[in-house]
Amino acid sequence: MRVVVPFAVDRPKTRLAGFLDPEERLDFARAMLGDVLDGLEEAGYDPEVLATASFDTDRRSDLDPSVPVRVDERALTPAVNAVLERASGPVAVVMADLPLVTPAALSRLFAARSAGAVVLAPGRGGGTNALVSSHPDFRVDYHGASMLDHERGANAIGARPRTIDSFRLAADIDEPADLPEILLHAGESRAARWLRRAGVSLSITDGRVGVARSPE
Amino acid sequence: MRVVVPFAVDRPKTRLAGFLDPEERLDFARAMLGDVLDGLEEAGYDPEVLATASFDTDRRSDLDPSVPVRVDERALTPAVNAVLERASGPVAVVMADLPLVTPAALSRLFAARSAGAVVLAPGRGGGTNALVSSHPDFRVDYHGASMLDHERGANAIGARPRTIDSFRLAADIDEPADLPEILLHAGESRAARWLRRAGVSLSITDGRVGVARSPE
Repeated sequence: MRVVVPFAVDRPKTRLAGFLDPEERLDFARAMLGDVLDGLEEAGYDPEVLATASFDTDRRSDLDPSVPVRVDERALTPAVNAVLERASGPVAVVMADLPLVTPAALSRLFAARSAGAVVLAPGRGGGTNALVSSHPDFRVDYHGASMLDHERGANAIGARPRTIDSFRLAADIDEPADLPEILLHAGESRAARWLRRAGVSLSITDGRVGVARSPE
Repeated sequence: MRVVVPFAVDRPKTRLAGFLDPEERLDFARAMLGDVLDGLEEAGYDPEVLATASFDTDRRSDLDPSVPVRVDERALTPAVNAVLERASGPVAVVMADLPLVTPAALSRLFAARSAGAVVLAPGRGGGTNALVSSHPDFRVDYHGASMLDHERGANAIGARPRTIDSFRLAADIDEPADLPEILLHAGESRAARWLRRAGVSLSITDGRVGVARSPE
């Protein structure tokens, strides 16, 4: 099965602005991408990156160099749909900002696929963090509450949509309030190591968990 | 197995203030409690409510009257620990603000239990939304990042902690930003019906999902 991980090379994770500067956001996004690729490889799959631009070699230094990178400058939705259109079999699309993923969570996603069906893993806020399409006519639309659109789209072509109930797949990292999840539940991930090196740690105030950053 | 659902009868869900008034928050909290009790009963269990005060009869009108209510005025942690101390077998504790729960998600939680072990279902932000303790010495501490404390506490008594990876169990409803999940993923729940009757609907702005409330 083809497994595609879309990745925005330029200006990723803009909602982390204010907490991380642009160069840090690039580094951190690459660490999360590394976690997703590691998880997929440990689960027994051969992922490929669908990037908006080519990576500098030094920027890929800590990623597995055997992972192929396909460049498509278009936005996420048309770039993924181009992959789905050309595919001759099932295709999985796994977002690059899921550092909590484990081989077990990914295996549960992939094991749920069946001929003619679409499997969806929701993200917080109505997003679709991962999917497996085994229907040739299924297309994505990542704008807005994409889970609703994907369920509707799958039903419209007779591809029974099935949902995977996973906290780890649901935990995409978009804003500072998401960062505690990495330190709480993925302490050995590349993303957690990156955060700790940057001086970011858990901060518990009034019984609520956040993150704080120590001065350099 | 004993299944306990703690419920704050007075002033529940204070972080929804500003979006729902105090009387509405009481109603809405009871709707979510009803969803959790329904899910537990459909999964084949006989839950009991551990309430901070007795319910008015009319306030319970839409809840299954056969569900027993035990009153303990103490805070959540000592009230739950009193149950754990008296228990002669495994005890499950499931929070009352999980309207996304399904019998399947609950069954996965309960199926993971084993003699001498503790099963934990994380909530967003380090909370523990559900647990099953099969160890006589396990005690809870719900303050702060309770997942870390519960894992540590379980390890300290030799009760191997195991974690359940469920988006539905992780989705506790505390603040307005949590409300979209109910309308997105639990459209037939009591909580979703309550929100729709109150004029609350999904609102998608700039590709991000929130809720809006129509004027009465």
